[in-house]
Amino acid sequence: MRDIEALKAKTQGDRRALVLEGKDSLALRDCPVDETLGAHDVRIAIHTVGICGSDVHYYTHGAIGPFVVREPMILGHEASGIVTEIGSAVTTLQPGDRVCMEPGIPDPNGRATRLGLYNLDPAVRFWATPPIHGVLRPSVVHPEAFTFKLPDNVSFAAAAMVEPLAVGVHAVTKAKAAPGNVAVVIGAGPIGLVTVLAALAGGCAHVIVSDVDDTKLEIARKLGSVSTVNVAREDLAEAVKARTDGWGADVIYECAGSERAIATIFEPLCPGGVVVFVGIPLSKPSYDVSRAMLKEARVEHVFRYAHVFPRCVAMLASGAVDVSPLITRRFTFDQSVEAFELAAKAPKGEVKMQIEMGLED
Amino acid sequence: MRDIEALKAKTQGDRRALVLEGKDSLALRDCPVDETLGAHDVRIAIHTVGICGSDVHYYTHGAIGPFVVREPMILGHEASGIVTEIGSAVTTLQPGDRVCMEPGIPDPNGRATRLGLYNLDPAVRFWATPPIHGVLRPSVVHPEAFTFKLPDNVSFAAAAMVEPLAVGVHAVTKAKAAPGNVAVVIGAGPIGLVTVLAALAGGCAHVIVSDVDDTKLEIARKLGSVSTVNVAREDLAEAVKARTDGWGADVIYECAGSERAIATIFEPLCPGGVVVFVGIPLSKPSYDVSRAMLKEARVEHVFRYAHVFPRCVAMLASGAVDVSPLITRRFTFDQSVEAFELAAKAPKGEVKMQIEMGLED
Amino acid sequence: MRDIEALKAKTQGDRRALVLEGKDSLALRDCPVDETLGAHDVRIAIHTVGICGSDVHYYTHGAIGPFVVREPMILGHEASGIVTEIGSAVTTLQPGDRVCMEPGIPDPNGRATRLGLYNLDPAVRFWATPPIHGVLRPSVVHPEAFTFKLPDNVSFAAAAMVEPLAVGVHAVTKAKAAPGNVAVVIGAGPIGLVTVLAALAGGCAHVIVSDVDDTKLEIARKLGSVSTVNVAREDLAEAVKARTDGWGADVIYECAGSERAIATIFEPLCPGGVVVFVGIPLSKPSYDVSRAMLKEARVEHVFRYAHVFPRCVAMLASGAVDVSPLITRRFTFDQSVEAFELAAKAPKGEVKMQIEMGLED
Amino acid sequence: MRDIEALKAKTQGDRRALVLEGKDSLALRDCPVDETLGAHDVRIAIHTVGICGSDVHYYTHGAIGPFVVREPMILGHEASGIVTEIGSAVTTLQPGDRVCMEPGIPDPNGRATRLGLYNLDPAVRFWATPPIHGVLRPSVVHPEAFTFKLPDNVSFAAAAMVEPLAVGVHAVTKAKAAPGNVAVVIGAGPIGLVTVLAALAGGCAHVIVSDVDDTKLEIARKLGSVSTVNVAREDLAEAVKARTDGWGADVIYECAGSERAIATIFEPLCPGGVVVFVGIPLSKPSYDVSRAMLKEARVEHVFRYAHVFPRCVAMLASGAVDVSPLITRRFTFDQSVEAFELAAKAPKGEVKMQIEMGLED
Repeated sequence: MRDIEALKAKTQGDRRALVLEGKDSLALRDCPVDETLGAHDVRIAIHTVGICGSDVHYYTHGAIGPFVVREPMILGHEASGIVTEIGSAVTTLQPGDRVCMEPGIPDPNGRATRLGLYNLDPAVRFWATPPIHGVLRPSVVHPEAFTFKLPDNVSFAAAAMVEPLAVGVHAVTKAKAAPGNVAVVIGAGPIGLVTVLAALAGGCAHVIVSDVDDTKLEIARKLGSVSTVNVAREDLAEAVKARTDGWGADVIYECAGSERAIATIFEPLCPGGVVVFVGIPLSKPSYDVSRAMLKEARVEHVFRYAHVFPRCVAMLASGAVDVSPLITRRFTFDQSVEAFELAAKAPKGEVKMQIEMGLED
Repeated sequence: MRDIEALKAKTQGDRRALVLEGKDSLALRDCPVDETLGAHDVRIAIHTVGICGSDVHYYTHGAIGPFVVREPMILGHEASGIVTEIGSAVTTLQPGDRVCMEPGIPDPNGRATRLGLYNLDPAVRFWATPPIHGVLRPSVVHPEAFTFKLPDNVSFAAAAMVEPLAVGVHAVTKAKAAPGNVAVVIGAGPIGLVTVLAALAGGCAHVIVSDVDDTKLEIARKLGSVSTVNVAREDLAEAVKARTDGWGADVIYECAGSERAIATIFEPLCPGGVVVFVGIPLSKPSYDVSRAMLKEARVEHVFRYAHVFPRCVAMLASGAVDVSPLITRRFTFDQSVEAFELAAKAPKGEVKMQIEMGLED
Repeated sequence: MRDIEALKAKTQGDRRALVLEGKDSLALRDCPVDETLGAHDVRIAIHTVGICGSDVHYYTHGAIGPFVVREPMILGHEASGIVTEIGSAVTTLQPGDRVCMEPGIPDPNGRATRLGLYNLDPAVRFWATPPIHGVLRPSVVHPEAFTFKLPDNVSFAAAAMVEPLAVGVHAVTKAKAAPGNVAVVIGAGPIGLVTVLAALAGGCAHVIVSDVDDTKLEIARKLGSVSTVNVAREDLAEAVKARTDGWGADVIYECAGSERAIATIFEPLCPGGVVVFVGIPLSKPSYDVSRAMLKEARVEHVFRYAHVFPRCVAMLASGAVDVSPLITRRFTFDQSVEAFELAAKAPKGEVKMQIEMGLED
Repeated sequence: MRDIEALKAKTQGDRRALVLEGKDSLALRDCPVDETLGAHDVRIAIHTVGICGSDVHYYTHGAIGPFVVREPMILGHEASGIVTEIGSAVTTLQPGDRVCMEPGIPDPNGRATRLGLYNLDPAVRFWATPPIHGVLRPSVVHPEAFTFKLPDNVSFAAAAMVEPLAVGVHAVTKAKAAPGNVAVVIGAGPIGLVTVLAALAGGCAHVIVSDVDDTKLEIARKLGSVSTVNVAREDLAEAVKARTDGWGADVIYECAGSERAIATIFEPLCPGGVVVFVGIPLSKPSYDVSRAMLKEARVEHVFRYAHVFPRCVAMLASGAVDVSPLITRRFTFDQSVEAFELAAKAPKGEVKMQIEMGLED
């Protein structure tokens, strides 16, 4: 039996947070956040927070595209924790519930939100996207609707992986692949790897993963029915055709944001196949419309995710997805700055680093 | 290295077949079938043939609905084998290839065929559907387009399961379930069980199987993330709601053809969910349109399968599906009549019985 | 230039409403409704209200299924009007705007609402569905999100037809018919006729309408490329096959809630076709699963509509849909009781009766 | 009553054809084509042939991309005519039937063909695509399956427009637009204009057409609920947002193959909208993946059409589409060379020129 009062005392009194003061400047310091618990909100003691490439990019560049860190901002948006308090209208959660949280809160009055496309709402407030604070801090207030209860057999570490996994699962949901399809995943970074897991769990019989880094490809091969192509040495289209009797892959997930990969992305695709853009390219790549036409390709673009967290939790609970091979290193909250310094170096063999905030499991 | 000439000699000289002479009358006897090898055909030595409920029904009733056995007909349509000869235009297969076969040959000039819906072609010629002979005989001539090469790690026994598995995979393809969905499968007979396998392989996080037979439900529970409901003792809708926080299942596969189940089939369904009719009811069941409306249910109906065999083979090869728990008994060709006599009794605990024709693996 | 202050004075001071006191008991009497204008709301002076079959059914039966009129309830939910006041957060509407209104207000925290399926929200508050008051009264407060501005060329009468039209347009949206398809509409009552208009506007090349009433069929034939079948004299499946070279119709809209029609509904359907249930049957009809399977029918069920009003307004504005042939009689507010007494007799040749509340156009 | 024997005598004895000898070299001369009437074929006397931009491009350039005219080739693939003879297995056509023809014949044994994607079959034999002869000649033998009977109210001129119209209808079919949507068509050339017609007939309430040529835009405005934007003077995204309350268009059809248009194509699109590439760009345009992601755009690519001709004929018959404003000039067969010389100059105000072969209507 968890002692909720002790947990509240411990986390609500603690004002520390991992604050990005600006480019290259990070501090673990007191940073109180003023939050009131609304009728439809819960308060959550944070247990584990994963470090995302976007967190690191804000740290090393001070901005991502139009999103510029102009004031001190708390980092972190991949989180799990324990409910300590609930609002008066909350019905599905209780103090003591182990949970994970979807980090974006849309405007309920937005047109996209009303359509169910809440991830496309331009007014969405998303953790650790300036100027919204993230959750590398002891507690947070969050809407019940975006807080998801964990079954006992899903660990806090796995639950903090739901956020990146959701990107892959959303991509696979959009692809609408048929069971037994063959998929290609371009890029074996963290987003590529969660997409591999999602594609396999979502019904693909086999996934061909491409990258230029053999270390990453080795990790990919451990995730299931996966073969790999190092595109520094091999041609992807040739390799895919060899594996598919010349027909091509049913689905191609672009997870590298690679201009070079996008230039020839329709070559390994089968007639009537699907390409899903998951990775964000830094520039406007060249795009082979004519070849896409010859195959009547369908191209989908994803932005974060919507309606995916409950399904991710269900797949972790059932064993359909095992994210543990992707969690390669853990730090304490006190080691947060050190963790980001290491992450900024993109060390070989690391996939997902997580920070444990010091709560009991 | 397989000795193809020996295989040809052995199988093309052998004129025996398991012939249904009429209701309740079965004989293993000489029954030559006149077949010429067209340019796009292959000749196949049969290795394994599964016994389907429809074969047994023809044996015990002499008919299924409008299809009446009026002349002696060879039974069997779930088959794997070895290519012994190829037509002049065949490019994807070679003598010696291990294969499984899709048993229906559509008219290429039919309108449904041209649309890609070849399973709906009224002129389809389907093995062991009167008056077309089945394949409980040493060899058959079949179109290359409906003959599928097996990877080395797919056994002949598993390959002879592709036909029933294809029914489940086709149903799951139609459902277009999202990864992490929860499905219900009504009926734990052979079709229900392959649908469970297909649903799990196709991305469902969890499947709830209902039946009135505890023996069958016990087999279902061994297939993966499966829970069971014996509807003789428990209410299905209640059980599903308890497992889904009151929301309901995303997909319901009706595999029992049960009037009673159909009468309340929309109750365990979630808003916006899908019902797939897979099992064929003997009558016209009563249907709750109003309740389907309140949930805006989508209802799909499947008839056999189309474009599914290659994906089934890929899933067997990758390990995404393991059909071996469903193969409960094997017979030799000489024991064929005995096998059908047993099958006609629907013995408890048996799922799929197969007949091995006597070829080496 | 409209005098908003005069309009406010006129409508906000008037407390009359058409109140259903109980079965068969209707009164035009004072019935003040307590409404406060929230930040996201607008206040609307009502101009025109259509009489729906459900209004009439509450009048003649005091209930529709589980919805029972237990306290006096104002009728009317098909309405257009003029904005007289706006809440502090309203951005898209101004006093003086001519508008039509979507009559259901969902709970923004419901799970179905969040998915975009707000019509399936069990907590929806829908005008003139007990215990929620309708809008046969001088003014109403309504959310901006469900209030739609009218272009100048859409009349108040046409705008008050958007609600029933939305049912047809929602059905056609669900059907996802391809341009040039042939549709069948079963039932030539008001819902059947708006479905005919929606099907033609939505891309069907031709619609075959069936009914047993020649007067209704005659109205249907005036709506465009329509042919009719009186099923008291002719067989629908035969007629459809004769018009489609034996192939069948691509889409069938069941708008009669007719058990007899549903029993054979898959007969006129083409292979791979779609059936949409729009009319609500009073019982659980018998359903021909086997025949639906032979055609792999997709069956959709609709409940009211979602996200459809702006598209209906656009189609009225562009001339894609002309609802004027369906508006067969108009009454003043003072004649409301008389209008319902007439409507209760279902007079031949009447489709839609409307009540004009006495505002200038 | 048509005199079929006279028609056969007239057309089968006439060996003339419009032959492209090579780049810039065209001759109306004897060019016998050896054709036998197969069991599933019909022989057709050609009535009207439209001149397509691709015919003109072969004339002026001798090639389109990889397709090079290496031997004399008869031009023309947009055709209507009269059946003069039928093969032994033909059931749906009779001598004397007025018909239009789909110009591509796929390999029935191809994998794409079997899937119903016959337009993607790499082995397709397509009229007037080297080395396959077109139909600017008195008669042709063609498969029954790709020959479509015309209702009496569809003229030969309109029927010869089915081929280009099919491109637009196929694009609209892929878009799966909902009734009442707003579409943008980029480019007001012949393909843009048929796409406008198809979009309106397919359910769009309004189409915004962009081009730099005011003459073409003026033609577009006559086709229905159309507004136009001259992108030499106005910004398309601004104009679309002004017409859609800032939301954007639901569907954008790129029919110009314009690099400049493609560079910003996602700007006028609404969240969750669809872009369809119909026009073939000569190069690999730059593509704004990030912006497509922010809207989760779906992008479809079309290649010719499949399964569209019967629906086009139905829309012409019902009046849902009127192609007559697009037919701007007619020539006799004897004037064929002159017609191409004029077409090569792309004269202002001309949309579709047709050649009448000299048959009675």
